[in-house]
Amino acid sequence: MHKFGIENYIAHLSIDCVIFGYQNNELKVLIAKFKFGQNVWALPGGHILKTESVDKAASRILKERTGLENIYLEQFRVFGDENRIHTHNFKEVMKEELKKFDAQRFTPSVIEWLTSRFVCIGYYALVDINKVSPQNGEFDEYLEWRSVKDIPPMTYDHDEILTLALTALRQNLDEKLIGFNLLPETFTMREVQALYEAVYDKPFAMNNFQKKILDLNVLERLEKKFTGAQNKAPYLYRFKRN
Amino acid sequence: MHKFGIENYIAHLSIDCVIFGYQNNELKVLIAKFKFGQNVWALPGGHILKTESVDKAASRILKERTGLENIYLEQFRVFGDENRIHTHNFKEVMKEELKKFDAQRFTPSVIEWLTSRFVCIGYYALVDINKVSPQNGEFDEYLEWRSVKDIPPMTYDHDEILTLALTALRQNLDEKLIGFNLLPETFTMREVQALYEAVYDKPFAMNNFQKKILDLNVLERLEKKFTGAQNKAPYLYRFKRN
Repeated sequence: MHKFGIENYIAHLSIDCVIFGYQNNELKVLIAKFKFGQNVWALPGGHILKTESVDKAASRILKERTGLENIYLEQFRVFGDENRIHTHNFKEVMKEELKKFDAQRFTPSVIEWLTSRFVCIGYYALVDINKVSPQNGEFDEYLEWRSVKDIPPMTYDHDEILTLALTALRQNLDEKLIGFNLLPETFTMREVQALYEAVYDKPFAMNNFQKKILDLNVLERLEKKFTGAQNKAPYLYRFKRN
Repeated sequence: MHKFGIENYIAHLSIDCVIFGYQNNELKVLIAKFKFGQNVWALPGGHILKTESVDKAASRILKERTGLENIYLEQFRVFGDENRIHTHNFKEVMKEELKKFDAQRFTPSVIEWLTSRFVCIGYYALVDINKVSPQNGEFDEYLEWRSVKDIPPMTYDHDEILTLALTALRQNLDEKLIGFNLLPETFTMREVQALYEAVYDKPFAMNNFQKKILDLNVLERLEKKFTGAQNKAPYLYRFKRN
């Protein structure tokens, strides 16, 4: 492998992505277990090429990790604490691990670059989990979908980044109707309700909820979902794009 | 003047501030006219010291320009287009102007640094306009409070930054009740309504508006404001902090 191309990227600026998916009535996040260190978990992230916009960099990183283009993506916050990387003495651990990992690729100057101060731009993404083929980043042993209720402690300030991404998602779910990005193309009203309950982590009264969603006039009603019990079959809906 | 201390700042990362004030029933923004160039206007901004957090840098820059501490400040968006500085050929103009301006201070390497690509972190601030003593930044001929309806075209992407700051302010005004930061310590209900009308640029029905605000239960009612016409004197209110 060739030398890590630090000269192509903007120094001291990184992107971390909270990739939300929805499965089995649970809101999930795609997180990475690092190849090195003891049980080190992190959000997928990357750097910004000198020739690309910050938003393009986020789309590229998301595409590299999920295989998907045109993902719903929202920049929600900058994490600019001057001591982000020093948490848990992770800087020193990283320096040692990167050297052990591949000393040819991670030369002293590359390690210095990678373990310097980074200001992180936080994005969250909403995906249809069934369409994602997770791809390991260069430091990842593997990627895993984990329920937001079952996230292991993560490195740096990634726990805080996740918490604030979830806050931003909750604020925007109603206002911007972005939740449908987490569902497959067609869905029942029950499934929409279960999704909202998973995101907000609380139950909603069925009649009120369904009326509220239908009154938004953003859903197109399709045929009934065939379940065997004909007269109880629920309608399928599709989100009207534009 | 000594050499501009680029070695103390993070390269390629800047902060721009949209400082909102309220006066004479108008929402205003503090903008700077540059010392050099032909009628060049910009939002106040600055850079981030290697030793300070991004939020601290924003507070420091705000304090330098307004004289105020503990300003209400919100990070609302990153402006990361790779061509931000190339708009209107401003990069070449800047290079020439900086050299003419002070060749000792703005050495070729400093000019290169200042005119390289910058990713900008946008903040908006809400201030009580009567408490501000505007202080010129190093490139400013003067600072001026201008109505949001009367802003001259600004350099780089500062017009877009202002537009999105106003959008963010409107979204947050109701939800976070931050508008009171734009008012003096005490105010009448009429003044609150006029502020909201200025921010949203539309009229509100008085009875509904006042009921909505009072129902929030965030205001403390004080004595009546003496106006001469005793029986028509309106009550004064104060925002309950915490």
